[in-house]
Amino acid sequence: MSLGRVSLVGAGPGDPELWTVRALRRVEEADLILYDALVDGAALRRLTRAQCFCVGKRAGRASVKQETINRLMMRAARLGKRVVRLKGGDPFVFGRGAEEMLVLAHAGVPVEVVPGVTTAIAAPQAAGIPVTHRGLASGFLVLAGQTGEGLNSALSSVRPAGVTVVVMMGLHRRTEIAGEFIAHGWPPDTPAAIVCGASTAEEWGWTGTLGEIGSPAPPAGVAGVVVIGEVVSIGEALAAANAGPAAADEVRYGRS
Amino acid sequence: MSLGRVSLVGAGPGDPELWTVRALRRVEEADLILYDALVDGAALRRLTRAQCFCVGKRAGRASVKQETINRLMMRAARLGKRVVRLKGGDPFVFGRGAEEMLVLAHAGVPVEVVPGVTTAIAAPQAAGIPVTHRGLASGFLVLAGQTGEGLNSALSSVRPAGVTVVVMMGLHRRTEIAGEFIAHGWPPDTPAAIVCGASTAEEWGWTGTLGEIGSPAPPAGVAGVVVIGEVVSIGEALAAANAGPAAADEVRYGRS
Repeated sequence: MSLGRVSLVGAGPGDPELWTVRALRRVEEADLILYDALVDGAALRRLTRAQCFCVGKRAGRASVKQETINRLMMRAARLGKRVVRLKGGDPFVFGRGAEEMLVLAHAGVPVEVVPGVTTAIAAPQAAGIPVTHRGLASGFLVLAGQTGEGLNSALSSVRPAGVTVVVMMGLHRRTEIAGEFIAHGWPPDTPAAIVCGASTAEEWGWTGTLGEIGSPAPPAGVAGVVVIGEVVSIGEALAAANAGPAAADEVRYGRS
Repeated sequence: MSLGRVSLVGAGPGDPELWTVRALRRVEEADLILYDALVDGAALRRLTRAQCFCVGKRAGRASVKQETINRLMMRAARLGKRVVRLKGGDPFVFGRGAEEMLVLAHAGVPVEVVPGVTTAIAAPQAAGIPVTHRGLASGFLVLAGQTGEGLNSALSSVRPAGVTVVVMMGLHRRTEIAGEFIAHGWPPDTPAAIVCGASTAEEWGWTGTLGEIGSPAPPAGVAGVVVIGEVVSIGEALAAANAGPAAADEVRYGRS
């Protein structure tokens, strides 16, 4: 009997138009799709005839255990099925993609990875913010903010400088996180932004400073990133340029 | 007369299957495409009926000046054309994407950005190396290595720790770059990898240590990244698991 295959596929920031062509092909051809909470299940079901199961953490419900996910993937592949493990963003950015790949490879199950547009770059971009920009940021650092541990070890290794910092999965802890940055010597007036639900109907943005980051109220239940660095000003400049002098006049004089 | 539009589109690491669905659509519908040297012009021409011009630096020939590119885009958009500015990787990662976007927005030309899979993540991934991994790397830093300046300012802001570093556009300077890392306190035996031509027919990889990075000879004229950090070991573990005991036996006993 022919062995199936597992494809670890990145679903990008949200909009299925931002999947890669190969990701779309794998989804269309799949027999079984196990997707994370960051993926829009309804949009997914319109694109495939595969059985689709959400294995991510959903409001109120716990996520399916990693061992169970691994077992489901292995069993289906051994039955000859084409399995897609669909993850928000890119599977190799805080996605445990390499962990799943190692388990499957050790079990002798054919496995491939299909990259995705990472939310770390696409979310700031949706607000017009480039993670690098000549004269403002010569590089960028991506961190996970959901627990203090990893963040602290990473933060103690980077000093305030011409580098953009993107914090993923840390929206609910943003006041603590900003406090940690400030404690590590970052000025409270460092420009900062929050972008949630990039490329989806729930897209929401805010710009301000590191010290003010606790004050805005992003929509509940929507994933987002915190961006810290001078590049935030580019997003503001782009918004102003797009609005143009006419639009500015409209605001000023109430024309419509 | 209706105004055209400029789309700044990311072409990902190389293979057009790794373009986003929206990128493919924009390329298919375009009237004019200005593409960088990192994009495969022959593959591009098979996908579109648009006029295609390479404006990037090619072996021996200088690149088209940024002002000329800006003027070409504006003129075509004002003639009602759908212009695609196609860049390797993601337009907002060392791509001057935001600079072009600002110029166009200030000139009143409708402009959008279509994200791409960044080579900073996809190139290591092609070698089985995740930029983050539980217990090995709690974040990743992306730097440009083509000149010393930006790199030095970024490097002096990050200390050796549980963070992966990806250096883009620095292959020809890799010995100097490794020297700069070592001078900043990074141990010479820190695992390091080189990945060139990810997702193309020219894909080439090497793993070793920071101190040995000058010894391998990557293929000439192919863009690549340098990856520095403990995550490099995951790529080696994956390769070993994929080879499996049977494959190891094949090598040992010459079975086929």
